[in-house]
Amino acid sequence: MPPEALALLPVTTAAAERSDAARNRQLLLDAAEQLVREFGADGVTMDAVARSAGVGKGTVFRRFGTRSGLMLALLDQSERKLQAAYMFGPPPLGPGAPPAQRLIAFGRARLAGIEVEGEMRRAADDSSRYSSPPYNITKSHVSLLLREAGAAGDIALLADSLIAALDAALVLHQIRVLGYTTEQVADNWERLVRWVLADASVE
Amino acid sequence: MPPEALALLPVTTAAAERSDAARNRQLLLDAAEQLVREFGADGVTMDAVARSAGVGKGTVFRRFGTRSGLMLALLDQSERKLQAAYMFGPPPLGPGAPPAQRLIAFGRARLAGIEVEGEMRRAADDSSRYSSPPYNITKSHVSLLLREAGAAGDIALLADSLIAALDAALVLHQIRVLGYTTEQVADNWERLVRWVLADASVE
Repeated sequence: MPPEALALLPVTTAAAERSDAARNRQLLLDAAEQLVREFGADGVTMDAVARSAGVGKGTVFRRFGTRSGLMLALLDQSERKLQAAYMFGPPPLGPGAPPAQRLIAFGRARLAGIEVEGEMRRAADDSSRYSSPPYNITKSHVSLLLREAGAAGDIALLADSLIAALDAALVLHQIRVLGYTTEQVADNWERLVRWVLADASVE
Repeated sequence: MPPEALALLPVTTAAAERSDAARNRQLLLDAAEQLVREFGADGVTMDAVARSAGVGKGTVFRRFGTRSGLMLALLDQSERKLQAAYMFGPPPLGPGAPPAQRLIAFGRARLAGIEVEGEMRRAADDSSRYSSPPYNITKSHVSLLLREAGAAGDIALLADSLIAALDAALVLHQIRVLGYTTEQVADNWERLVRWVLADASVE
């Protein structure tokens, strides 16, 4: 599947809206986005959005149904903005910079929108996972080995990043949906470890 | 916090059980684990576990409450087995091998238990995420840049692994609970990208 065809998928849904309704909706989303920036995601209530956009609270409810509907719309909007920025925007995020620089910029841009994305995920509530004893035992073990192997950078953050590559939902998707073997996934893990420790001495 | 103190946490809960009850429970868990190996996680029903362990179905329900309770117990058991293996077991997973080798073995061992872990996660139902258009647009973009940058290995698997490091729930945990700044998280991302592309030409 060519990445360009795939990349244009979500933009089409917005095109179906009548343009005045779309403008109205955009006004509310801009107000909500501004509230996230100023007060964090917790500051985004239907009430606050209505007040900030100068409309009645009923308008916000009619538009988005629930607060989680509003959050979903915000998530969709920030995804599409990021998408436009990396496909058509100025370098280093957009075309024109070397790929490694664009990749670095992509991660940084994604991190800038992490609050809104996180609020959506919190609705699904998997947030206690990283505070759980099993996760932290695993993290201690991986951190210890990284330290012993002489890894550079912030060891704890690096441990989180590596463990994320072993996430069960992700790996099962790779195996069951994408058709990889466990061995291929394990080889990907091994390459990742070897790259991370390339400056250290991997025996 | 010393990793050893943390690592001994979950073992203590089992010690509180009376030993015959614990033996009984272990019998059922062994039967369930055997069913997972033979038929996959979907083959583990309360009925099948009872039949396989030669007890009444009521016994399995009394022990674990629900199928998801049984899955949770299996998850806990496989976590504790893995923990014992990397702390006290033979190398390369256990002590005695160089840290990089132990790290590689750790990932491979974790992948071996991924079915049970995945079944638990499926209960929380975040499984459609990796099939969603937004995820796949992101993955196309990251894959494209990795390819352009001359990355080695399986590009699609590598893209999954890198994107996992930007997971919103993980990053927000790092920032809100662990006290990192977004800048520190972004620097960790940049180091990761640079290591992965070290053999390619990162400008």
